[in-house]
Amino acid sequence: MVDTYGILYDETLDNPEATRIRRVAELMRNRGRRKAGKFIIEAPQAVREALRYRTDLVEDLYLEVDDEGAPISERAGEIEREILSGTPERVPQGVQRVFIHHVSSRVMTSISTDAQGIFAIADMGDLVGSLADFSLYGTLGRSAGERGRRGETGAPMVAAFWQVRDPGNAGTVIRTADAAGVDAVVLVDDCVTPYSPKVIRSTAGSLFHVPVLRASADEFFEWCADSGLTTLAADVYGTESSHPTPLPELIADHAAAGHSGRAILFGNEARGLEDDILDRCNGIVSIPIYGKAESLNLATSASVLLYSLAMHDRMA
Amino acid sequence: MVDTYGILYDETLDNPEATRIRRVAELMRNRGRRKAGKFIIEAPQAVREALRYRTDLVEDLYLEVDDEGAPISERAGEIEREILSGTPERVPQGVQRVFIHHVSSRVMTSISTDAQGIFAIADMGDLVGSLADFSLYGTLGRSAGERGRRGETGAPMVAAFWQVRDPGNAGTVIRTADAAGVDAVVLVDDCVTPYSPKVIRSTAGSLFHVPVLRASADEFFEWCADSGLTTLAADVYGTESSHPTPLPELIADHAAAGHSGRAILFGNEARGLEDDILDRCNGIVSIPIYGKAESLNLATSASVLLYSLAMHDRMA
Repeated sequence: MVDTYGILYDETLDNPEATRIRRVAELMRNRGRRKAGKFIIEAPQAVREALRYRTDLVEDLYLEVDDEGAPISERAGEIEREILSGTPERVPQGVQRVFIHHVSSRVMTSISTDAQGIFAIADMGDLVGSLADFSLYGTLGRSAGERGRRGETGAPMVAAFWQVRDPGNAGTVIRTADAAGVDAVVLVDDCVTPYSPKVIRSTAGSLFHVPVLRASADEFFEWCADSGLTTLAADVYGTESSHPTPLPELIADHAAAGHSGRAILFGNEARGLEDDILDRCNGIVSIPIYGKAESLNLATSASVLLYSLAMHDRMA
Repeated sequence: MVDTYGILYDETLDNPEATRIRRVAELMRNRGRRKAGKFIIEAPQAVREALRYRTDLVEDLYLEVDDEGAPISERAGEIEREILSGTPERVPQGVQRVFIHHVSSRVMTSISTDAQGIFAIADMGDLVGSLADFSLYGTLGRSAGERGRRGETGAPMVAAFWQVRDPGNAGTVIRTADAAGVDAVVLVDDCVTPYSPKVIRSTAGSLFHVPVLRASADEFFEWCADSGLTTLAADVYGTESSHPTPLPELIADHAAAGHSGRAILFGNEARGLEDDILDRCNGIVSIPIYGKAESLNLATSASVLLYSLAMHDRMA
């Protein structure tokens, strides 16, 4: 086993009160995570994406096993075999070994009922960095590779969320932003912690795919100006001094004129964006409602806006 | 009160075991709803939309009141006043009166913890009809008004969902389809019941805005053919004989050639669409993934596809 990246412990842990298990359980709470600087990644898909893209952060794997010591989840078993069988496809330099623990059903249940047979413990490291230290053009941050995959045609796009509070929403919009090929996701002001287990489950691994960064509103606007990005607020009403442009018009205008990159800012799921934030943006964009619905929720708005802009940038 | 459309009972109901309350509680379950032919609409927004668009179905309102008999929810109180103050803006001919009941907090809690101070009891009536009896062009169904609001330019668009099972998903996609201005939503084969309280909450009233219809797969394809609609499946992989067209290509082609209306069919949230269903569609459309996410969830796919097509139909 010395040559592999995984070390499997023989013993199956069966005591929910054991110190190791109680320390893991503390990571389900914000306070425990802050104290330890670690977090939990539940379920095969998110664990696999963490191992694929941020192996450097993963320290331990916990697999639920049956009475014969076999993993109860086929996908979890595959992950274990892949790690034990040698070097995964992409392993950064200096990676620490991953320790693999088998646990009984009652230990697993005492930690999580959403793990589907496997969870990982990871170090927070630089996973969610500060926007101020991040560069779109790869000189400071880890975006050089990200820019590469957009090819030569795409202007940069950043998705920013102001005071998003619901973990399921936050995870879903990070996943959508990833799929739409954004260069970064920015959590502005007081957002839900991206280390919440529900956020991580809802991202389906996207937290490990795309740079996720934190910023105050001041830092956000300063960084966008420095990076040459146009800031666009997603909002239906606008303010007295700034009126929204309907999305189809924005697309038609930009198809004609081109643009040099933008940051789209979405508001809180209940309250939207405050007027003083709206007035600091270069523009406001609204999604037309063609039917009788009063409004769209945050996840739908983000899907429509980010994808419409991403597709048009690539068609232009 | 004889001239108004609401009748308010003086007494505040405070016994969760009273026959009337127990009968209402049974409507939280599928079996109870089927037996009674009625369903529950929770929370001010959905209740208000039901009263605005399908007053004919609403039979009773239940408002939670405080010890002084005042509604605990301001928005619920407004709804009560509006009904008692006379004729609402849109009242169909032959509407029955709405009976208004005040209930204590413990009665409300025994029924629902999601009602935010108000729920309505409504008759299922024709709310979710059969697709076979529905006409896009208003001769049989209630779509004449729907077509009107699309103006002269838009070709018809129908959103169909095959075996959607999660109530939150079903409600969200009905709301998105409404906002995107579809002419109808079709629930194909074995879907979650649209009368589930969670579906109704998630639609935020859209169940009362847009025709929602049921069909078997056979009925769906037959109706689309009869109605002159092109059927497009939303799917990433396609089948051996039918390959997906990426959404941006589909849009570019149709912008050039126009089209005579389409039905977009979405699959089950976990399993997608089966091959035999895919092969029966006229075409398959896929949403490109520009980042590293593996897939999009149903709600995101529906948002992106329905809105992209709706916007382009109106821009063309």
